Amino acid sequence: MSHNPTDTFEIKKAATSKIDSVDFENLPFGSIFTDHMMYCDYKDGQWGTPVIEPYAPIPMDPSSRVFHYGQAIFEGMKAYKDEQDEIWLFRPDQNFIRFNKSATRLAMPEVPEPVFMEGLKQLINIDKDWVKKGKGNSLYLRPFMIATGHGVIASPSAQYRFMIIMSPAKSYYQGEVKVLIAEHYSRAANGGIGAAKAAGNYSAQFYPTRLANEQGYQQVIWTDDATHTKLEEAGTMNVFFKINDTLYTAPTSERILDGVTRKSILELAKRDNIKLEVRSVLVAELLEAAKDGSLKEIFGAGTAAVINPIIGFAYQDNYYELPKQENPIALEIKDKLTNIQHKLAEDTFGWTVKI
Amino acid sequence: MSHNPTDTFEIKKAATSKIDSVDFENLPFGSIFTDHMMYCDYKDGQWGTPVIEPYAPIPMDPSSRVFHYGQAIFEGMKAYKDEQDEIWLFRPDQNFIRFNKSATRLAMPEVPEPVFMEGLKQLINIDKDWVKKGKGNSLYLRPFMIATGHGVIASPSAQYRFMIIMSPAKSYYQGEVKVLIAEHYSRAANGGIGAAKAAGNYSAQFYPTRLANEQGYQQVIWTDDATHTKLEEAGTMNVFFKINDTLYTAPTSERILDGVTRKSILELAKRDNIKLEVRSVLVAELLEAAKDGSLKEIFGAGTAAVINPIIGFAYQDNYYELPKQENPIALEIKDKLTNIQHKLAEDTFGWTVKI
Ligand SMILES: Cc1ncc(COP(=O)(O)O)c(C=O)c1O
Ligand SMILES: Cc1ncc(COP(=O)(O)O)c(C=O)c1O
Repeated sequence: MSHNPTDTFEIKKAATSKIDSVDFENLPFGSIFTDHMMYCDYKDGQWGTPVIEPYAPIPMDPSSRVFHYGQAIFEGMKAYKDEQDEIWLFRPDQNFIRFNKSATRLAMPEVPEPVFMEGLKQLINIDKDWVKKGKGNSLYLRPFMIATGHGVIASPSAQYRFMIIMSPAKSYYQGEVKVLIAEHYSRAANGGIGAAKAAGNYSAQFYPTRLANEQGYQQVIWTDDATHTKLEEAGTMNVFFKINDTLYTAPTSERILDGVTRKSILELAKRDNIKLEVRSVLVAELLEAAKDGSLKEIFGAGTAAVINPIIGFAYQDNYYELPKQENPIALEIKDKLTNIQHKLAEDTFGWTVKI
Repeated sequence: MSHNPTDTFEIKKAATSKIDSVDFENLPFGSIFTDHMMYCDYKDGQWGTPVIEPYAPIPMDPSSRVFHYGQAIFEGMKAYKDEQDEIWLFRPDQNFIRFNKSATRLAMPEVPEPVFMEGLKQLINIDKDWVKKGKGNSLYLRPFMIATGHGVIASPSAQYRFMIIMSPAKSYYQGEVKVLIAEHYSRAANGGIGAAKAAGNYSAQFYPTRLANEQGYQQVIWTDDATHTKLEEAGTMNVFFKINDTLYTAPTSERILDGVTRKSILELAKRDNIKLEVRSVLVAELLEAAKDGSLKEIFGAGTAAVINPIIGFAYQDNYYELPKQENPIALEIKDKLTNIQHKLAEDTFGWTVKI
C-alpha cells in the first residue's frame, strides 16, 4: 500500500436520512440498513480509494465470479453506545484478523488494516445516530468481500469489492431453542473451508436446517463429517456444554469457526475461575450425561445473540429436555459479556475500542 | 405454475450487436458474452415472467443473500451448430434435472422446466449467429440462480433470480496437464454439498489449487476428506483411470458431482464394449499401478474440455509420469463424444436435441 487510505476516503453523504422511518423498538435482525455504506475496490493487484456513499444497489455483471464460484467472505461485529454517548467496538482486531484468514483460504486478497478499521470508524461516525443507547441495543456491522471479476471460468477473480453495511439491532431473543444433532448432514470437511467465514458454508446448512425446523428444532448442532460422533458447532454459534460443574467446548479446527465470543468466554472463565475444558464432547457422552442427569446446560455463543441457551436436543428420534437451572451459567456469562460490551462493567481485558 | 411462461417471454432486443468485434479464432474461455441474457425472478412463492434483454449489469442490493450466504447454483452446457446450420443441445434434460437437485440441496426453489428449457431455446435463437459451425466450436451456456432477497440473516432467501448467459467457445486445449493428488485439502464433506453444482464448492478449491499451480500442477485430484485414500474427482471434471485394459471411475456420491460427460462415457463404453468398472480407485492402488506399469492413462471428463488427458500425477513429493500410448482410449472417447455432439456420427442414444 503506497497511499494511506485514511487520508483519501471519498465521502458522498445522503441528502436525507431514513432514520425517522425506522421503529427502533421493533427491529427484525439484519433487515434494515443505515443511510450509508462503505466500499473499496481491488483491481490490478491494488486497493483503490475507499468510498462512503448513500446505501444503494450496486451494478453487477451477470458473470461476476461471486455468482458462479462463491468467492465471498464476511464478518459480523457490533458497535455499542454507552451512557456518555461514546461508541465502542468489541475486539475488532479479532474480526480483522479472521477476515484476512478467510480471505487467504478463499484465494482472495487481504484487506489492508486501514481500509477495514478506518472504514468501520468513518462509516459508524457518519451514521452514529443509528447506534442507540441501552443494554441490548447495538449496531450490527457487516464487513464483507465479493469477487467482482467477470468470466465464467473456475479460477480466482482478479477483481474484488470490500464493503461494509450496518444494521441496527435489538437484543436477539430467539425464544426457547431446541436443537437437532446432525447424524447425516455436515457443514464442513476436513481440509475444507469450515474455519473460514465463507459464504458457501452457510447456504450448505440451509436445507438440513430447514428439515430440522420442520421437525420442531430451531438449529442443528453439527458433528464431524467423517464419523458424526463428535459435537462441533451450530450454524452461526460455537457450542458449550455444562456437565456436572464443568463447561466443555470443542477445540477450533479446520472444521470449526474460531468465534470471538467463544474465545472471550475462555478468557472470562480463566479470570473468574469458571471450570472450563476445551475438548471435543462425544455424542455418546452427551447422551449418557443427559440420561444420568449430569448434563446441566447447553448454550450457543456468537456475536448476534451473544449467548443462546438451549433447552433440549434431539438425537436419533429421541428428544432430551435439559433440567431447569436456578442460576444458569449461560446467563451469568451473557451478563458479564454484555456488561463489558456496553461499558457497564470494567473491561479488565482491554477488549473494547472507542470509535 | 398457473401461467405458461413460453407464451409470456418478454423480449427486448439489443439495438446493435457486438458480434463483429469478437475474434472467434481467439476466444478466452468464458470471458465474452453474447448480446442477450435471460432472467426470471422468483418472489412471493412464484416465478414471474421470463425476460430476455441486452446483456448488461444487474443492480444488486449489498445485503443480497448470495453475497453473504452463497446461495448460488449453476449449470454448464453447450450448443453446437451442424453443417446444415441446425443448432443442437447435448442432453439438456440431464442439466435441468441436476440444476433442480442442486436447488433443493441449497434450499432454493426448483426452476420450472419451461423457464429453463424455453429460456435456453429462445435465448439461443436470438443469438444464433454466435454459434459457429465446425468441430471444436460451441456456445457455452451458463444457466444459474442466485439468492436476491435482502437481509444479513443466515437463512434461505425468499427471492431468487434465475439467469442464462452464453459465451462462444473454441475447443478447450489446456496443454499438458499434470495433477496433484490431495493429501490434506478437500472439496467436499460427507453429508455436504459436493454433489450439487453450488458456487461455494468452487471457491473452496481455489486456494489449494493455487498451491498446486505454484508447484507446477494444473489441477488437483481430490480424495475423500475423511481418509484421503480414495480418488474422487477434479475441480470441474470427473476422473477416469485406465489400469491394464480397464477404465475405472469413482461412483457418484454426496461428495462427487454426477457429471453428464461421465455418465455418457459409461453408456458409450457399454455400447462399444469398452471395459469399464465403476468403483473407487485407492491412492495406494494408483501408486502401485504407476510403479508396475499397469497404469496406462488418466483423464478428466467434463463439459468444458469434454476429455482432458492427464500426463502425470504427483503424490507426497513424488511425480509419476504416465507412459505415452499409441492409441489412447481418452482420445477415442473424446472423438466419439464430440462426433455425436457435432452431429458427425449417428446419435444412437438420442442425446442430441434440436433447438
Ligand atoms: C459458523 C459460526 N460459528 C461460530 C460463530 C460465532 O463467532 P463469533 O463469536 O465471532 O460471532 C459464527 C459467527 O457468526 C459462525 O458463523
Ligand atoms: C465438480 C465437477 N465435477 C465434474 C464435472 C463434470 O460434469 P459435466 O460432465 O456434467 O460437465 C463438473 C462440471 O463442470 C464439475 O463442476
